[in-house]
Amino acid sequence: MLLIIDFFWEFKVVEGFGVSQVVDSDNPNFKPGDIVSGLTGWEEYTLIYKTEQLRKVQPDNVPLSYYVGLLGMPGFTAYAGFYEVCAPKKGEYVFVSAASGAVGQLVGQLAKLHGCFVVGSAGTSQKVDLLKNKLGFDEAFNYKEEPDLDAALKRYFPQGIDIYFENVGGAMLEAVLLNMRIHGRIAVCGMVSQNSISDPQGIRNLFALVTKRVRMQGFLQSDYLHLFPKFLEDIIGYYKQGKITYLEDMNEGLESGPSAFAGLFTGKNVGKQVICVAKPQ
Amino acid sequence: MLLIIDFFWEFKVVEGFGVSQVVDSDNPNFKPGDIVSGLTGWEEYTLIYKTEQLRKVQPDNVPLSYYVGLLGMPGFTAYAGFYEVCAPKKGEYVFVSAASGAVGQLVGQLAKLHGCFVVGSAGTSQKVDLLKNKLGFDEAFNYKEEPDLDAALKRYFPQGIDIYFENVGGAMLEAVLLNMRIHGRIAVCGMVSQNSISDPQGIRNLFALVTKRVRMQGFLQSDYLHLFPKFLEDIIGYYKQGKITYLEDMNEGLESGPSAFAGLFTGKNVGKQVICVAKPQ
Repeated sequence: MLLIIDFFWEFKVVEGFGVSQVVDSDNPNFKPGDIVSGLTGWEEYTLIYKTEQLRKVQPDNVPLSYYVGLLGMPGFTAYAGFYEVCAPKKGEYVFVSAASGAVGQLVGQLAKLHGCFVVGSAGTSQKVDLLKNKLGFDEAFNYKEEPDLDAALKRYFPQGIDIYFENVGGAMLEAVLLNMRIHGRIAVCGMVSQNSISDPQGIRNLFALVTKRVRMQGFLQSDYLHLFPKFLEDIIGYYKQGKITYLEDMNEGLESGPSAFAGLFTGKNVGKQVICVAKPQ
Repeated sequence: MLLIIDFFWEFKVVEGFGVSQVVDSDNPNFKPGDIVSGLTGWEEYTLIYKTEQLRKVQPDNVPLSYYVGLLGMPGFTAYAGFYEVCAPKKGEYVFVSAASGAVGQLVGQLAKLHGCFVVGSAGTSQKVDLLKNKLGFDEAFNYKEEPDLDAALKRYFPQGIDIYFENVGGAMLEAVLLNMRIHGRIAVCGMVSQNSISDPQGIRNLFALVTKRVRMQGFLQSDYLHLFPKFLEDIIGYYKQGKITYLEDMNEGLESGPSAFAGLFTGKNVGKQVICVAKPQ
């Protein structure tokens, strides 16, 4: 089994999710010219032996790079996390952290489509503006400008939070715990604020889980793969109907990789960070 | 509505759960001689206006004091938490902290009846001995003698923990998070280690919720009251068949209250602490 492919890369070290075109293949399931998504190397041409992790992409007037974001793992994480873990009900109060990211932006839009009230947090005023004016969030705020996150949440959710889609951890999670409503749900997707810390911050206020009878559940999209075909159908449908928007931050050329990667840690990117290595033939 | 009652008290300040006998009543639902359980004052005779919180007790060869423990709120907490929150499966690995307490001792026994492997922690060697030799736990350990709780859990659960019934919080919860199995469940009943601390300890290792896809859920028995009749039927049945044992620590006389209360904080009591104020007429 030999498959040589090239194309777009999502932002990971050494290996990453990419959308690629098959250059040559001795696997009968893949032929030159096919477009596939899956794990590839950070390089212009990749030799892939583990072909079972590849998905064929059917070009359908959606930008191919969306298959590493909106229509790939991040989008599916949002979809599975929101519908399967958060168990949302119409009219509920939803808070999303890292809301302009590849996952958060879709969670917020799905919540709006579901009839929820949605507030997002992000780390720049540009992102806050996008959340409110382009992605349809009811409200958004810049957490870096809030000296008291508990007070900020009480301002946006005077009635409390039913659903928290957790992407950041740390002080934000502590503040959210103080503001959950009875029988609320916290879907734990990530805790990016703790990623580069060797001694992660301890979370106080967990006793609120008892007093408010909150369910806090970690999840990975890979547990829900049976829903992937329905996810693609639903999200491509919403996108084509103009019901959802997708923000990505595209850099051109493999050589732009290091600076784009470093930019993730300072909030430089707006939306899903992708690198375009080559265009399809 | 007037109801004067006396009897057993569970251990709480000012008000507490008690089993009492009606001395006099102008409420047609209660007549002198009736036995009731519910909130009463710490006193020999109590005047109760809120009669809707009282339950009538049908004497059936079970000690009356059990209605503030095994057959009262603590027992029902164990029952609802284990069956409804932990969603146990036969053969799963279950860990219970504060395992000799009124709640923990029943959780462990229900888990054994359900076909699980059960380990409990407690704070004295006497309690550890009771867990292993009287309550039927597979294993038990004294957390005060374990300098490394993570290592202790790895010793008792080399394959990891499917269900953690959380009563203590703090360092034990942090260690448990490192030892959960994929798709494990943590039922958060209490965090007694943090009760008297003004600045509760932060819990690290929460990211394990994501990597292990763990559900951590706080609960209160009051959300499950529709199950109370079935609970009484099941537990009285198990008790009469000798399938479960119940440990209580009975002190005689209202004047024994303060020392028994203080003893809770040093682990002096073994099993449910109750005070016998008077015997039924």
